[in-house]
Amino acid sequence: MKKIRVCVVGYGNVGREAVEALGQTPDMELAGVIRRATGEGPTGIPVATGVESFGPVDAALLTIPSRIVPEAAPLYLRKGINTIDGYDLQGEAMVELRQNLDRLAREGSAVAVTGAGWDPGTDSIIRMLFSAIAPVGITCTDFGPGISMGHSTMARAIPGVRDAVAVTLPLGCGEHRRDIYVTLEQGAIFSEIAAKIKADPLFKSSRTEVIRVDQLTPCKNRSHAVRITRTGSSGSAHNQLLELKMRITNPAAAAQIMISAARATMRLQPGSYLLGEIPPIDLLPGSREAIIRKMV
Amino acid sequence: MKKIRVCVVGYGNVGREAVEALGQTPDMELAGVIRRATGEGPTGIPVATGVESFGPVDAALLTIPSRIVPEAAPLYLRKGINTIDGYDLQGEAMVELRQNLDRLAREGSAVAVTGAGWDPGTDSIIRMLFSAIAPVGITCTDFGPGISMGHSTMARAIPGVRDAVAVTLPLGCGEHRRDIYVTLEQGAIFSEIAAKIKADPLFKSSRTEVIRVDQLTPCKNRSHAVRITRTGSSGSAHNQLLELKMRITNPAAAAQIMISAARATMRLQPGSYLLGEIPPIDLLPGSREAIIRKMV
Repeated sequence: MKKIRVCVVGYGNVGREAVEALGQTPDMELAGVIRRATGEGPTGIPVATGVESFGPVDAALLTIPSRIVPEAAPLYLRKGINTIDGYDLQGEAMVELRQNLDRLAREGSAVAVTGAGWDPGTDSIIRMLFSAIAPVGITCTDFGPGISMGHSTMARAIPGVRDAVAVTLPLGCGEHRRDIYVTLEQGAIFSEIAAKIKADPLFKSSRTEVIRVDQLTPCKNRSHAVRITRTGSSGSAHNQLLELKMRITNPAAAAQIMISAARATMRLQPGSYLLGEIPPIDLLPGSREAIIRKMV
Repeated sequence: MKKIRVCVVGYGNVGREAVEALGQTPDMELAGVIRRATGEGPTGIPVATGVESFGPVDAALLTIPSRIVPEAAPLYLRKGINTIDGYDLQGEAMVELRQNLDRLAREGSAVAVTGAGWDPGTDSIIRMLFSAIAPVGITCTDFGPGISMGHSTMARAIPGVRDAVAVTLPLGCGEHRRDIYVTLEQGAIFSEIAAKIKADPLFKSSRTEVIRVDQLTPCKNRSHAVRITRTGSSGSAHNQLLELKMRITNPAAAAQIMISAARATMRLQPGSYLLGEIPPIDLLPGSREAIIRKMV
């Protein structure tokens, strides 16, 4: 059987894990890693600044900061290469990105899966299922304690910040506190940086503390967690209690979900999809019958 | 907006809950209830022995014992009416039913959703998602303590059994004990009935105790539960911990999932599907964009 040829765009936490996980995925092979500049990077695998160097590529995992996804995905879709991204801005921004990528994907006869992470992503599917089981009710999504990659990346992008780690603490019922640990560049003014972080849309909705430290290593644990609960009713039955809990190494879960979504792109019609718009069975290797026999 | 017209086939525990839940579902309306014989049944809603009495019907919820699904579903599919069943035999039986219904559904330009319950059904989707997040690992599904409707129905069908309640007790790691409480018809021989129950394929794989009682009312609590855990790895990260827990009024959850699946039938191409073959977003009312804004 022909293997799905996948390139990994970016080589940060998620990119590294994607390379690792692809090596353990029997129906796929790594075409190479794309980086803006070659330099210190992975050894023993092809690295280039453009996808052309790798021969035919079926799908590109965009393991890049969320905010540059809207400009990066089109480069691949126009070449007829499927894209999988972990875009994490919810609401209107997500609807817009999906719409733009949908047009480009159809033009390129390609498939784009957007928001292919665990939240948004698999958690979104859980919220949908919980709502299908108990349509009237209250869902709460509580993250952490753990480090949020997207939030860390955002804080790191602020000029004057040398490095940052965003710790998410669940206060309960969907409320969170964000503790942002930062190391600063020479001459940076802490109060200005703290204000800039707090003003970002990603942080504005939560209570955010910015904490200056000399050393970030003690904060760099990659474990993260989520708990989704729904208390609702199905028809006349109230008190339907649904709960999902995950405790995961975050970048590895993110990379693995992108890989599963890459598999699904090979089974979908051209266009763009969020994870919840894909039949879950298409995320898994093998024939539908084999999967049904094994896990339905 | 035109409402989806749904008939409910059968008026047992799930059928009653389906009627109740349909009354609270804004995008649907109850066409009527189909029963083998009219007699004591629901009041204030149309009841008939055939679907023709109800005018145009979009979908039929087959709230009937699992074993008669294979003969009942074709009656509707041939008329171009979508069917939704809660068939609960897993493995090869499920694959076969899906295949047979697929042919009939395509011929009738209809959609059949089979295994549209919580297990198989939404739990199957959870197992798929857990496997997509952590492809290497161990999944355990533990049911109860609670009453299993399908198992109760099966025991009730044995000649000589007046009524039966099948209690499922989780022993852990996917092992269960089934305690089958039975009341007997005059003249029935308990030892023979116990042997017949234990020999049924539905019970053979678990330790089964058959207990004779005079009165079943104290057993008839409709709460049931499930816990699905996966301990697995994503790429280089081991110890990914995933868990789903539900504690639900069982027939109401089953009915509600069938209703959500009925909605999806209106959005799918002709053919037969298990729940895991349907985009989860299609289970919910409203446009995809509205759902994405709200819960992705």
